Amino acid sequence: MTDATILTELRAILGDGGLLTAAADRAPYESGARYDRGQAAFVARPKSTAEVSKTVATCMRHGIALIPQSGNTGVVAGSTPDASGTQAILSLDRLTAPFALDRANRSVTAGAGLRLSELNRRLAADRLFFPIDLGADPRLGGMIATNTGGSRFLRYGDVRRNTLGLTVVLADRDGTVLDLSGGLRKNNTGPDWKQLFIGTSGSFGVVTECVLNLEPLPQQTAAALLVPAAEQSVPDLLVAMEQALGSYLSAFEGMSKNAMAAALAHVPSLRNPFAGGAIPDFAILAEVSRSWPPRDGEQPLSAVLEEVLAALLDRGTLSDALVGRAEEMWALRHALSEGVRQSGKLIAFDLSFRRGDIMRFSTHMKAEMAQRFPGITICDFGHVGDGGVHFNLVVSKSDPRATDPAFEQALRDWVFQVAVEEFGGSFSAEHAIGRRNQGMYARYTEAELRRLAAQFKAATSPGPLGAVEL
Amino acid sequence: MTDATILTELRAILGDGGLLTAAADRAPYESGARYDRGQAAFVARPKSTAEVSKTVATCMRHGIALIPQSGNTGVVAGSTPDASGTQAILSLDRLTAPFALDRANRSVTAGAGLRLSELNRRLAADRLFFPIDLGADPRLGGMIATNTGGSRFLRYGDVRRNTLGLTVVLADRDGTVLDLSGGLRKNNTGPDWKQLFIGTSGSFGVVTECVLNLEPLPQQTAAALLVPAAEQSVPDLLVAMEQALGSYLSAFEGMSKNAMAAALAHVPSLRNPFAGGAIPDFAILAEVSRSWPPRDGEQPLSAVLEEVLAALLDRGTLSDALVGRAEEMWALRHALSEGVRQSGKLIAFDLSFRRGDIMRFSTHMKAEMAQRFPGITICDFGHVGDGGVHFNLVVSKSDPRATDPAFEQALRDWVFQVAVEEFGGSFSAEHAIGRRNQGMYARYTEAELRRLAAQFKAATSPGPLGAVEL
Repeated sequence: MTDATILTELRAILGDGGLLTAAADRAPYESGARYDRGQAAFVARPKSTAEVSKTVATCMRHGIALIPQSGNTGVVAGSTPDASGTQAILSLDRLTAPFALDRANRSVTAGAGLRLSELNRRLAADRLFFPIDLGADPRLGGMIATNTGGSRFLRYGDVRRNTLGLTVVLADRDGTVLDLSGGLRKNNTGPDWKQLFIGTSGSFGVVTECVLNLEPLPQQTAAALLVPAAEQSVPDLLVAMEQALGSYLSAFEGMSKNAMAAALAHVPSLRNPFAGGAIPDFAILAEVSRSWPPRDGEQPLSAVLEEVLAALLDRGTLSDALVGRAEEMWALRHALSEGVRQSGKLIAFDLSFRRGDIMRFSTHMKAEMAQRFPGITICDFGHVGDGGVHFNLVVSKSDPRATDPAFEQALRDWVFQVAVEEFGGSFSAEHAIGRRNQGMYARYTEAELRRLAAQFKAATSPGPLGAVEL
Repeated sequence: MTDATILTELRAILGDGGLLTAAADRAPYESGARYDRGQAAFVARPKSTAEVSKTVATCMRHGIALIPQSGNTGVVAGSTPDASGTQAILSLDRLTAPFALDRANRSVTAGAGLRLSELNRRLAADRLFFPIDLGADPRLGGMIATNTGGSRFLRYGDVRRNTLGLTVVLADRDGTVLDLSGGLRKNNTGPDWKQLFIGTSGSFGVVTECVLNLEPLPQQTAAALLVPAAEQSVPDLLVAMEQALGSYLSAFEGMSKNAMAAALAHVPSLRNPFAGGAIPDFAILAEVSRSWPPRDGEQPLSAVLEEVLAALLDRGTLSDALVGRAEEMWALRHALSEGVRQSGKLIAFDLSFRRGDIMRFSTHMKAEMAQRFPGITICDFGHVGDGGVHFNLVVSKSDPRATDPAFEQALRDWVFQVAVEEFGGSFSAEHAIGRRNQGMYARYTEAELRRLAAQFKAATSPGPLGAVEL
């Protein structure tokens, strides 16, 4: 139980609805989107940077650990408290102001608690958007803390690339506010401090406001499902399409047969787009887009795509290509995650590689899995264009190994070892660390970098902040 | 004089030609591209990361301050020693290996001593390039240390955006090597350490190798000189062109009448492109490009540009637009710097603003300059598309103020004060800090950030490294 005088102090800062202490009120904040569940001492819901600063200062002076929580859509237990009941949640869900669109600068200044969908809804009339495309609907602060990437990374990059400024509160006795919010596109007057708070799971400070780069909203889109002639030719296919389509290319997503079959089996609204219903071993969803409306004299985008694909079919790089409605193709792509989750016990990895290594890793794992862990289904898919792989393993619910934690641990350790040590990959491409990846951070981060991280943490936010120990 | 035993130790590490001590050999390394001139104890020229590590370790153990020097093309005295004769130069000019192109990953691993022009020469056969467009021809390490931007920032971003990995040597007693060279596009497993070494003038460590993102080389280009109806409508013009041309738009450069007149007067090879030779008050060089060769059925790029400009002329946003040979237009743009330098005593600033503030700043300065510093000519030009302004002031050589350091200081202080304090701009957009901007760093960096920088410096490179004190 938190001391009543502390709660009184916080209530004076946060006002009505700003402090939740009852179990029923806390509950929605205590469970994460997928695996995690904890217990919070209380939930603080500041509405401004100034309130965050005062809340943090109060908690740090009293030694209360704070877990910043944004949209709570992450999957690595980065935004929920542990089971101790001593950690408190600092929720950004009321910190949705300011909202200031700067059309000339093509940027927006927004509160870190604003939802991605709400941001884009407000920008649509100006034909602008924040170009991070995700299945979930997070709030901005969490997107920054995890440096999310998503499906259009190939064209627009990640949150890091699109962040022009931040306001951050440090976990010290003063709740020091760092104003890094200039919104300048070019500025080299010292270390680029905002980088420190992007992708570090809220350990170095709480992001309260941000200045984001915006992009012209696509006005024309065409998409195709591609069947490569051979899985090993996928990197060549990517290079060829980049050379032929340049900045038109806005997505290049890979889908394994098992992942597509799971989606088609478990998501009834989907239509099987393949001729005769025969799902290929591997397919690519390629999307092209333009940010202007169709113009007289301009070749339609679907015709451009068809012409490029015809050449790739001729050359034998592709064995099939279906140009069709983008919505239908994305519906299949977006259903993969749900389909895989419903087909058994899911053991999921968010890996990344150099782009040329993705299919090599996949081939290697298919062979090795059959030997070492027979009967486990690989349902991988991912962002081939940027090297990301959602490497999903499914254990049949009727298999006793589905409920064996030692088995899962052995399997996880082995996959990480192959991905990181043998293929030079990342154990967390776009989900960041969280408590779930804490062990991998300790295992795969050089001692020198862990030493630096600890010193940087002490220099910025010496108090107990965040679910992760860097 | 450096102790002979130290020189013997270094000679053993660096081999023939790796250590220069004679005054004549040192001289080319002791002067910078524009203003600076110093004296070095010696010049060390390692050929590999291992040699850099040993050199740094030796120097740090003996307390010898090192100034990393790359192409030495910077203009802020960041790569030359001071006048004391006690600082040594660590030159990257022999560190040109490795060179490993990864076509599938669209990246290259290169030695930090490779020149930009040589890198792009080696990539041309693969229709790839490193998309930082500069007037100078620096080596890669210096581009990283200054985070250069250049004229195509609008389309491709800066060095930071295009750096996928680094190898860095820290200035400690061991010459610790940090391998941050994974080359992954998505990786969120801790702080993104490479960010710390980008744009920090070599203070935190010496970059020895890098993994760089490459882009498809443009195969079609068209350009136009635009005369805006009013200077205050330039931000609207930029927004309109971004909406109409999206990712085609690869440059949007502003040129003042005075800067163009100086170039035309002093660079005899230039042709005046304006009708009747009447130079407008302000012109924009707009460039569009595509990365694929012309295709059947595709509207030519110049026709696309003409159509968009016709609409802007109709709407009254533009008063004139000349579509023509891109080379000729870029020749004018690239001659501005030289022309301005030749027209008198140059007092140059590398500022940046939110894009909407550029023309507002310009108008404000024209009025104020006439009052406070009459007779000084403003010859500004810059990268309107990303907010950068090369704000150049020219004092006639016959004006006694041209040789008065106190006058120059007063003028500089005032310009910085207006740019930074009144307009929220940056005192160094793309030239970084260097000894030349050290005073501005101290003046305009919050105490809290200076405290953090000092702690980060102590944690990474506690030894004397770099021309700048962060």
